[in-house]
Amino acid sequence: MKVAKFGGSSVSNATQIKKVLKIVNDDDERKIIIVSAPGKRHKDDIKTTDLLIRLYEKVLNGLDYQDKKKEIIQRYADILEELEMDMILLTTIDETLEHIIKTLKDEPPRLYDALLSCGENFNAQLIASYNDSQGVKTTYLSPKDAGILVTDFPQQAQILEEAYDQIYKLRDIEGKIIIPGFFGVSKHNYVVTFPRGGSDITGAIIARGVRASLYENFTDVSGIFKANPNVITNPELINEITYREMRELSYAGFGVFHDEALQPLYKHRIPVVIKNTNRPQDKGTFIKHDRDINDKEVIIGISCDKDFTVINVKKYLMNRQVGFTLKILEILEDYNISFDHMPSGIDSISIIMRTHQIKGKEQEVLNAIRRNCEVDELSIEHDLAILMVVGEGMNKTVGTAHQITHALAESNINLKMINQGASEISMMFGISVEDADKAVLSTYEYCYHGVCLKNLCAKK
Amino acid sequence: MKVAKFGGSSVSNATQIKKVLKIVNDDDERKIIIVSAPGKRHKDDIKTTDLLIRLYEKVLNGLDYQDKKKEIIQRYADILEELEMDMILLTTIDETLEHIIKTLKDEPPRLYDALLSCGENFNAQLIASYNDSQGVKTTYLSPKDAGILVTDFPQQAQILEEAYDQIYKLRDIEGKIIIPGFFGVSKHNYVVTFPRGGSDITGAIIARGVRASLYENFTDVSGIFKANPNVITNPELINEITYREMRELSYAGFGVFHDEALQPLYKHRIPVVIKNTNRPQDKGTFIKHDRDINDKEVIIGISCDKDFTVINVKKYLMNRQVGFTLKILEILEDYNISFDHMPSGIDSISIIMRTHQIKGKEQEVLNAIRRNCEVDELSIEHDLAILMVVGEGMNKTVGTAHQITHALAESNINLKMINQGASEISMMFGISVEDADKAVLSTYEYCYHGVCLKNLCAKK
Repeated sequence: MKVAKFGGSSVSNATQIKKVLKIVNDDDERKIIIVSAPGKRHKDDIKTTDLLIRLYEKVLNGLDYQDKKKEIIQRYADILEELEMDMILLTTIDETLEHIIKTLKDEPPRLYDALLSCGENFNAQLIASYNDSQGVKTTYLSPKDAGILVTDFPQQAQILEEAYDQIYKLRDIEGKIIIPGFFGVSKHNYVVTFPRGGSDITGAIIARGVRASLYENFTDVSGIFKANPNVITNPELINEITYREMRELSYAGFGVFHDEALQPLYKHRIPVVIKNTNRPQDKGTFIKHDRDINDKEVIIGISCDKDFTVINVKKYLMNRQVGFTLKILEILEDYNISFDHMPSGIDSISIIMRTHQIKGKEQEVLNAIRRNCEVDELSIEHDLAILMVVGEGMNKTVGTAHQITHALAESNINLKMINQGASEISMMFGISVEDADKAVLSTYEYCYHGVCLKNLCAKK
Repeated sequence: MKVAKFGGSSVSNATQIKKVLKIVNDDDERKIIIVSAPGKRHKDDIKTTDLLIRLYEKVLNGLDYQDKKKEIIQRYADILEELEMDMILLTTIDETLEHIIKTLKDEPPRLYDALLSCGENFNAQLIASYNDSQGVKTTYLSPKDAGILVTDFPQQAQILEEAYDQIYKLRDIEGKIIIPGFFGVSKHNYVVTFPRGGSDITGAIIARGVRASLYENFTDVSGIFKANPNVITNPELINEITYREMRELSYAGFGVFHDEALQPLYKHRIPVVIKNTNRPQDKGTFIKHDRDINDKEVIIGISCDKDFTVINVKKYLMNRQVGFTLKILEILEDYNISFDHMPSGIDSISIIMRTHQIKGKEQEVLNAIRRNCEVDELSIEHDLAILMVVGEGMNKTVGTAHQITHALAESNINLKMINQGASEISMMFGISVEDADKAVLSTYEYCYHGVCLKNLCAKK
């Protein structure tokens, strides 16, 4: 049994929905389908979810929201019309939105979750109804009926372990099942949305619950590229990647499949494939527990994320003092700051974190360190980018670090930091934000094509 | 005003002592002289300090110690005879040893400190007396009279800040001053020895106290080599090195000048020169606050220390959990373990420490981590060596990492860890102990001579 999830652009209009249902109906194994809200139909279009956010803002500010509501209803009306379906669903949509606004307008966080869930929810009902009308037995299931029981904190839904037993029973339902992505229902019967990764998470939870043989994640690209296509022209696609590799790449900016969505799959080793709704014949990228490693594919991908901050601490004879680092980490915990890395010298330590972690608390944190740790020097640096080179087997291959540092040196990129060791499958290089794209480009070309690009960036 | 310290081999017999005094008397600026205990006169000789340790052990075990005492007295008798001096000092030596044994035999740690201090103390008296007899006004000062006031814990002497004012007054004494190295006196009037670096520390303390223009550290080599001469045949000498560079190299095994001895000098930027008693005309190696940096001397030295242990921890989504690392460090603090480095991945962290830090506590520490941190995987690895490449300006020079990784890759050395970033002046590479010498050799040859030595190790 397969679980298939379709992203916003795959279900944005009638043409796309027909493509989706052809894919769904072509394979009997594709039993459970997770759908997103209608996405953009063209470059300047607005996603349904964004329309719903605007509706929420109008209501929140006590403004007239009727036009905004009509705009949302029109998105579904367009689809229904193109699919030559009954317009009765529009009344349900209108009544549902009004009901949510009426009952939750004084509880903004609940209102937000309930309104936003509508994008996926209406679309699931519409698509289920259409497919059923075409002679393929298809059932719409709300997350509640599907058993997606989650924690109760708004916008922070986490699946409850007990939900999986309920979800397993979906296996017994006949025909196709269509479930809206992006949210679950709490024990208090509130709609609660997932914090990150939205519909991908729903798909992963369902795939785990029913013990799917494969979780197909349909989007508008034919898989995962070895590097960011906004930086590299026509980068190669990855055929197979492991969960661990995917997670490391996601960490540093690979956005195709949210790493949070890997978590439910990990335990039962359920493979994922990233496929293209518009080119379903393409093989896509498989995300699995293991993969074949050959010499050519030691490095699976290269990513670079730009938004890091570093605190540098110097203290003479630091390494002799048991507990010095501990003191600093206690301060970070007091300010609820999660740090990412901590390279250290003999008398110095750097603490690297996402910039958003420390934003607004900078001075307080620095003062606390100054006060409690008797440091000799203390400084903070913004604009650090982290280049991440990922691949199973890297730690067993002599010379990988050499290849990468060669490529970076040829491009005249200064390495502020190198962190390798704890993870066997990645190397991290701290560089200036301004060198970020050049670093990806030169590493990519050198590692995959053996080309040394001293002046390539200038030529571009 | 200069302070000069002479190591054990420089004051091991009459010939050496005459060399030392020629050096001392040739320069009016050389006012305060710190001397060690008589060292080895030939390869199979025993240092006086080691004879004193044996005497201590005899006393401690209630054995007859007269022969051992005589052996010690004989060392000084030999020197006195060669110098054609009065033998009266031998009576003082005998009486002093007997007095110490009698009064401290029931307090082993005090006995140890008092007996061991005798090696330096008798030698200082002897040398001062001889120089004075040669017509150069020379005064012996005990550490007590010199003002070397230290903390009271046996074998762990730390200079008290207030001592420096007293030491400053040594400037007013006429003629040469000779002070024994290796120990101070506590407020309770106990002799207490320094934990590490012995006479080097005394020299540094005196140099700081009198605000010397230069601290000359005389030994039996003409300076500090760029790499271990036991690994590299005839390595080049370093002309100038900064305090910081020296400390990083000492950390990873450079033993010529103990980094602990740099601490007193740091604040007032008192330069040190390492010179050779047997070749005083050689320029030696200057240890200073700053140095000229040119392209050829970006890398000042290469060292490798072999005795490290790594604990590897894996936990899925570790980087999302504020305070996870903190928990681990708290456990280390509970067991009074000082760690050195902590490279981290997304879901993993490695904690690197000196093997002696965790010896005997391994299982307890691992169990505590298992119990408190809910880790997914936990392992421990011994036999890690750390290759340290040090140089001011490395962080401003593109391609240093590349040079080193190139050299290591050519020698087929796998990099278990790279740690660069917190210190601007060093890079650390974790490698197998068995690759240690090969790593130093290939890095040295490649970085200094541009020679790639694929098969050099095999040829050697």
